Amino acid sequence: MAGLPKVLLSGFEPFNGELLNPSQEVLAELSGERIAGHRVEPLLLPVDFEAAPAALLAAIERHRPELVLCTGEAGGCTGLRLERVALNFIDARIADGAGRQPREIDVLAGAPAAYLCRLPLAEMAEALRDHGVPAELSLTAGSYVCNAVYFRLLHALAGTGTRGGFIHLPYLPEQACRHPGAASLSLATQAKGLGIALGVALGQ
Amino acid sequence: MAGLPKVLLSGFEPFNGELLNPSQEVLAELSGERIAGHRVEPLLLPVDFEAAPAALLAAIERHRPELVLCTGEAGGCTGLRLERVALNFIDARIADGAGRQPREIDVLAGAPAAYLCRLPLAEMAEALRDHGVPAELSLTAGSYVCNAVYFRLLHALAGTGTRGGFIHLPYLPEQACRHPGAASLSLATQAKGLGIALGVALGQ
Amino acid sequence: MAGLPKVLLSGFEPFNGELLNPSQEVLAELSGERIAGHRVEPLLLPVDFEAAPAALLAAIERHRPELVLCTGEAGGCTGLRLERVALNFIDARIADGAGRQPREIDVLAGAPAAYLCRLPLAEMAEALRDHGVPAELSLTAGSYVCNAVYFRLLHALAGTGTRGGFIHLPYLPEQACRHPGAASLSLATQAKGLGIALGVALGQ
Amino acid sequence: MAGLPKVLLSGFEPFNGELLNPSQEVLAELSGERIAGHRVEPLLLPVDFEAAPAALLAAIERHRPELVLCTGEAGGCTGLRLERVALNFIDARIADGAGRQPREIDVLAGAPAAYLCRLPLAEMAEALRDHGVPAELSLTAGSYVCNAVYFRLLHALAGTGTRGGFIHLPYLPEQACRHPGAASLSLATQAKGLGIALGVALGQ
Repeated sequence: MAGLPKVLLSGFEPFNGELLNPSQEVLAELSGERIAGHRVEPLLLPVDFEAAPAALLAAIERHRPELVLCTGEAGGCTGLRLERVALNFIDARIADGAGRQPREIDVLAGAPAAYLCRLPLAEMAEALRDHGVPAELSLTAGSYVCNAVYFRLLHALAGTGTRGGFIHLPYLPEQACRHPGAASLSLATQAKGLGIALGVALGQ
Repeated sequence: MAGLPKVLLSGFEPFNGELLNPSQEVLAELSGERIAGHRVEPLLLPVDFEAAPAALLAAIERHRPELVLCTGEAGGCTGLRLERVALNFIDARIADGAGRQPREIDVLAGAPAAYLCRLPLAEMAEALRDHGVPAELSLTAGSYVCNAVYFRLLHALAGTGTRGGFIHLPYLPEQACRHPGAASLSLATQAKGLGIALGVALGQ
Repeated sequence: MAGLPKVLLSGFEPFNGELLNPSQEVLAELSGERIAGHRVEPLLLPVDFEAAPAALLAAIERHRPELVLCTGEAGGCTGLRLERVALNFIDARIADGAGRQPREIDVLAGAPAAYLCRLPLAEMAEALRDHGVPAELSLTAGSYVCNAVYFRLLHALAGTGTRGGFIHLPYLPEQACRHPGAASLSLATQAKGLGIALGVALGQ
Repeated sequence: MAGLPKVLLSGFEPFNGELLNPSQEVLAELSGERIAGHRVEPLLLPVDFEAAPAALLAAIERHRPELVLCTGEAGGCTGLRLERVALNFIDARIADGAGRQPREIDVLAGAPAAYLCRLPLAEMAEALRDHGVPAELSLTAGSYVCNAVYFRLLHALAGTGTRGGFIHLPYLPEQACRHPGAASLSLATQAKGLGIALGVALGQ
């Protein structure tokens, strides 16, 4: 399996007082899995406006993946949220892990205002729902670290043959217990969903 | 196990265009299970203002359970909803399985306006959340078949030593796929939660 | 106008850190108004499990109204919420104005579990919507001071010719500004709606 | 007043089965008003992917405004939604007024992926809330006619001294009556809010 082409799958550490992050938990579930002839390489990122993009770009250099799928937590959403847009804009309502809270600035000065994802998001969402995994298309990945990482990813991949995407994940049920009224999805369902989404993106 | 005291666990058939009902699916998961020294006896009810209470009361006669827990679907809720109140009131927004749609009438003329559940609902909800299952206390089970069954149950049990309760269940993920933005909970989590709730109710 | 039959309209003082309470503001709008041949008598109540019912019952003694309509704030709701049920149950998640926070107790020991409102709520809701005022029927007034006052009201009126009801009101826009994502309704719309609801209730 | 510099304020006709559109109604309220030394010029647009941008660009040619503020309806939102991003992407879930329903296409081939609004949106939102008008910042204006018009506007204004923006408006209470549970805001509050937002935008 060492010779298989790779998919780089990133997730984030817990933040904002949470003890878990679904995007970290799914890494353990999918790490080393073989999907559509590709091997899943996991990468855990800190919730940090500088360290996270740096670690992602370094991992791309190292692993030379054919596809990069980043994931992050979007507390309150009900299904997998496939992000269409990476925006060149940061406006943080809470500080990141390093204590920075930039307001209304560019992710990267001089870069385009946005990148649109080239993955077949509508087909991915349809496949997810066909397999019983709630999913929706989203036009904004927010203005926090998730979006900044996504923007840096699509900026780095622009003009290369490598494709990238971002999927936001709901709370795990354990997290939702501490947020009355918040929706959640089990780890098994979330991991199954990411496998399906990757399968479609990789050519199925 | 034949000699064990029984818990009667009821669920409903799919309705309102759904292909599944979480309260039916959990029956298969828990049927015959042993919880806190009791055996779970399953009962599937039709979504019918007359046939459902009749079948429930007949099953109570037949099984002589120590505890009766009814369950039903509450599409859109995010966790198990423990119902405090059974109301002597019907106001149906959609027809039942037999085509009846009663508006603003009593469940049972001459009976009290409501019954309050005597199960330790707050402790049950706390135990659920402690085990990672989202749960909330609710003060209304609606004015449709679920509530009518619940009212007939607590009316029948009033003055007896048998206790009863009602728990509303969220959509299964497969259902939520057809309701954009609706929350859901996996069957495994829902069944686990009912087991925990029954354990607390029976252990007191 | 002194000789007109009276409607007693109650509202509450601000609570839970709010600077306003829509149910207080509507009193000023409707105080002394003539609706369907009745004069509106306003009554401001404290958010207090003991003082509020006491003041309400004293005002009924004093004014001998033909109809009593209590109002209160239900932050987050989108329209006037016409309450069908007054429940003999208190479970306070925050302390009242006197610092009491009773959990899982009766409003009145030995009284019925609930009273159902005898006002024509469905007709009132329909009239509201026909006049452009969002409205919904509700089966629970909660388990806090609003519900306790409502229960004491319907208990006191039971067997008399006087009718009573309760309508929960949304935030005012000024309040919603401090609660991102919360719905609101302008004071003018809320006061107009209460006038319409009273007109229907009195006209029957 | 003929000699005053102009603000062009656009709204849309009702669509999707609605009888009203808040963005049309506010035009009548603000037409001809003088705000911060500017005269408000109203413009009603059809919900049409081709005719709407064409009419807007023609009106800009004709009126030579200093500022262009487009408005549209976003059913379900609770306050004025100040749109940060105009996206070069169309994905229509319902047909427009001319029966077209384009899926996953560019607004304008060869144009940038997005434009970011240069108006002081955070200050506008703060001023709105300070004056009791619920408001929020938004990172997506959707992928329907509103966003397409917005994109064409910012593309046309790029490199000129003229600034542009887009504000989505909640349902009017009359509309919310037909959408149970949907939030609304009165016409008076919406019009007041647009006046405040324009005042801040023009005062800089």
